[in-house]
Amino acid sequence: IRIGGSFKERQSSKNVLSCENRDPRFGHTETDFSNLFARDLLPAKNGEEPTMQFLLEVVDILTNYIRKTFDRSTKVLDFHHPHQLLEGIEGFNLELSDQPESLEQILVDCRDTLKYGVRTGHPRFFNQLSSGLDIIGLAGEWLTSTANTNMFTYEIAPVFVLMEQLTLKKMREIVGWPGGEGDGIFSPGGAISNMYSVMVARYKYYPEVKTKGMSAAPRLILFTSEHSHYSIKKAGAALGFGVENVILLKCDERGRVIPADLEAKIIDAKQKGYVPLFVNATAGSTVYGAFDPINEIADLCEKYNMWLHVDGAWGGGLLMSRKHRHKLSGIERANSVTWNPHKMMGVPLQCSAILVREKGLLQGCNQMCAGYLFQPDKQYDVTYDTGDKAIQCGRHVDIFKFWLMWKAKGTSGFEQHINKCLELSEYLYTKIKNREGYEMVFQGEPQHTNVCFWYLPPSLRGMPDCPERRERLHKVAPKIKAMMMESGTTMVGYQPQGDKVNFFRMVVSNPAATKSDIDFLIEEIERLGQDL
Amino acid sequence: IRIGGSFKERQSSKNVLSCENRDPRFGHTETDFSNLFARDLLPAKNGEEPTMQFLLEVVDILTNYIRKTFDRSTKVLDFHHPHQLLEGIEGFNLELSDQPESLEQILVDCRDTLKYGVRTGHPRFFNQLSSGLDIIGLAGEWLTSTANTNMFTYEIAPVFVLMEQLTLKKMREIVGWPGGEGDGIFSPGGAISNMYSVMVARYKYYPEVKTKGMSAAPRLILFTSEHSHYSIKKAGAALGFGVENVILLKCDERGRVIPADLEAKIIDAKQKGYVPLFVNATAGSTVYGAFDPINEIADLCEKYNMWLHVDGAWGGGLLMSRKHRHKLSGIERANSVTWNPHKMMGVPLQCSAILVREKGLLQGCNQMCAGYLFQPDKQYDVTYDTGDKAIQCGRHVDIFKFWLMWKAKGTSGFEQHINKCLELSEYLYTKIKNREGYEMVFQGEPQHTNVCFWYLPPSLRGMPDCPERRERLHKVAPKIKAMMMESGTTMVGYQPQGDKVNFFRMVVSNPAATKSDIDFLIEEIERLGQDL
Repeated sequence: IRIGGSFKERQSSKNVLSCENRDPRFGHTETDFSNLFARDLLPAKNGEEPTMQFLLEVVDILTNYIRKTFDRSTKVLDFHHPHQLLEGIEGFNLELSDQPESLEQILVDCRDTLKYGVRTGHPRFFNQLSSGLDIIGLAGEWLTSTANTNMFTYEIAPVFVLMEQLTLKKMREIVGWPGGEGDGIFSPGGAISNMYSVMVARYKYYPEVKTKGMSAAPRLILFTSEHSHYSIKKAGAALGFGVENVILLKCDERGRVIPADLEAKIIDAKQKGYVPLFVNATAGSTVYGAFDPINEIADLCEKYNMWLHVDGAWGGGLLMSRKHRHKLSGIERANSVTWNPHKMMGVPLQCSAILVREKGLLQGCNQMCAGYLFQPDKQYDVTYDTGDKAIQCGRHVDIFKFWLMWKAKGTSGFEQHINKCLELSEYLYTKIKNREGYEMVFQGEPQHTNVCFWYLPPSLRGMPDCPERRERLHKVAPKIKAMMMESGTTMVGYQPQGDKVNFFRMVVSNPAATKSDIDFLIEEIERLGQDL
Repeated sequence: IRIGGSFKERQSSKNVLSCENRDPRFGHTETDFSNLFARDLLPAKNGEEPTMQFLLEVVDILTNYIRKTFDRSTKVLDFHHPHQLLEGIEGFNLELSDQPESLEQILVDCRDTLKYGVRTGHPRFFNQLSSGLDIIGLAGEWLTSTANTNMFTYEIAPVFVLMEQLTLKKMREIVGWPGGEGDGIFSPGGAISNMYSVMVARYKYYPEVKTKGMSAAPRLILFTSEHSHYSIKKAGAALGFGVENVILLKCDERGRVIPADLEAKIIDAKQKGYVPLFVNATAGSTVYGAFDPINEIADLCEKYNMWLHVDGAWGGGLLMSRKHRHKLSGIERANSVTWNPHKMMGVPLQCSAILVREKGLLQGCNQMCAGYLFQPDKQYDVTYDTGDKAIQCGRHVDIFKFWLMWKAKGTSGFEQHINKCLELSEYLYTKIKNREGYEMVFQGEPQHTNVCFWYLPPSLRGMPDCPERRERLHKVAPKIKAMMMESGTTMVGYQPQGDKVNFFRMVVSNPAATKSDIDFLIEEIERLGQDL
């Protein structure tokens, strides 16, 4: 196979690859973008040349951004308050106008947009479950947006539809469903995937709700733990169950659901004449990274004839690791699984799958048979049209970047990434668990990469637990976080949980992070927090 | 301001811009990708150079694809059946494996993915409401995926959150709400936007449903026309209303709802003891492009105290045109509006807005106050955090490409685009309305760019209406479409509607289309259909 050679010239010249070290000979581009406008680009007559030059200029901006993102001497962010950005900083004007701006101004806007944003791919960005900037995934996204198509039919997305089908099958195999059988779809995020699970469960047990509404069913109860993601409650509200019919289950001190509490609450609901329908087991909770005991929950679901959903949005990635997948033991007994490759597997946002063990339910639940879209008399096998499974009509192509990453890394590459992230968090845990000024929020080694801890400034150390200490400690993490953001050096999340005051939640999913970045985070917390 | 000059070298050489006319001196790239793997890219040590070279190679593939997409001598698609692609064509292997593939293979996979896909930006692609490939929008998407962040908080998407806020306000001003006041959010497509409208309407009238479920409300009725998008029914099913409580309204021969039928059905529902809650007025129906009479519907909504939603997913773009916006007259009386810039305004997929006139409802309806995400004690004004308005948790950045296009075209540029598309469809309508072998599905000039027609092969002309004619005519469009796809020359949609057999639905939203492409479509239909 032949790989194109058209970039030799610029590749042979270092200046092309670096904004800072430009050869002075190339101080100006031939193209003057100040007299060019969007209307001069393709499909305009003679638009090809300016189009190519404009896109290459954009790529120059993006590659410079990427290079700097991986450079630890770059700040993670350049923080400004909303009013500052709205007032316009150094000419960056967010307001839209009636008349077009030149391509020169558009390029400046692109630079400014990146300048005032947050570098989520920076090795020291730990703020979110999704972090990092995978180059293959990025290339996949660039291609996806160039292809600019829609997942609803094979007709206009033949390759992507097949990639989705094969990838979902592979994911179901990894979950452990025999032969990878079942169904699934990529959805716009874990909350929507979880919503699908509730919809499909309801359709399985009370299909008449689709036609007649919730009044056709008895009072249905959903169970999920007090540490689970709020999207189960959102689904309960949206789908007409009502939040008070989403029963929160107690967790142990590690954030794992207590099966006995589930059984007690099932019995209680039944005694009231309600119908327990659905249990969500969390595989990797948002704050503690806890894994609910799936097998014990599955036993109860079988005993009481309930739907078992596993929310592995965050923890699903651990299935790729032979070392860590035991934490999801029992997942093969689930009726549905949420798994977000855009979190632990480092796929660019968005990429979330809902997997369903029983075939046909997604279609049955959602199909409305719109004749203008899903014509049965097409020349190809229309069972490949996926649109009628979805609650969406148009659906973004989220599969390609993931498929391409899988090709490029192999299953083994994902495994290595996951193992490495878990090792880093173990490193952090080991480093701080007995360190002066730190207190762990829960005892014992974390199950996922979540490490939850309080930093105690010297002024709080040795103070006995009392309302004043709690009140002061509650303010420590927000203060440190605010200073971190203003200095732009690193980012990590914090939150309260139950009766626990604000603590840091460190998570590692960023492939760029190393031990030195973990060390840096700790130094930074101590530097910023020592006088609080 | 200074525009980088780093691409001078390659820009000065024509061979860089064209795959076909490469200067033989540049027949090989210096980089041998066959020995490079994903693990050699950033964040790997010394990964910067291969990363830049790999990305530039990808960009070379993409710019070649773009150039060819706008070239009418390129086919719109290279059709293959699912089994052909699954078996692997010329080494294009969709299967995922355990071990990584070389970057050389990854680049080949990228080329093959584009090769076997559909060029939705081709001037002769008319198959979908979304078509075209806007270069500014594309650049916006490339930047968005490089920034790889999430809309839920200002903290990690400061610029994008503000852009969304300003753009939504501008859209509300254009809808006609005083001062652009109100609320809104970008959602993953029109179906989800319409679902939001039903959720918010329910919350406005029966806020207790959020807590207690649908059993807390009387039997609620949603109204929408028989020509409206199926997403209203999907929302009715998903949200627990039940499809039988989504009442379909009769339309006139042009596909516009008949207000008297709405009133009769409201009265009927009330007599049965049900509660009419919500009316969807379609502004630009999917098949006929019909605009429901919003003012007359708004009168009834006021009279009966109902929520008025306008589904302008397809027709909302006409608000940008002083010439055509009268078709949505009355939209300023709506309680909520769906408007998809990814359709008529040519923004890359996905970009859909739900606008709500009353502030606070989106938040009230959807918020669950997750402490780990939406900390009230941040250092900035947290009213800018949007996540708790959404049914999603993570939310893709759909705003930037749209904002950038608006900057680059101005409001006036969108207006010109819309007027041009409407002119083209008028040209088509005028061309075929009296042409031999054509029959219009409805009489009179179309309101939107939708032109619906039957093509009658010579063998069917003059045959009186009878079951045999209908049966044969029903097969004409699918046969022509199949041949079109196999020859790859153009793409246009078809479908039946009500008791009408399969007909072509031509739509124009592609900025690359010209009169010659319309002529080509007609010639192609006649060429492929004449012997049927």
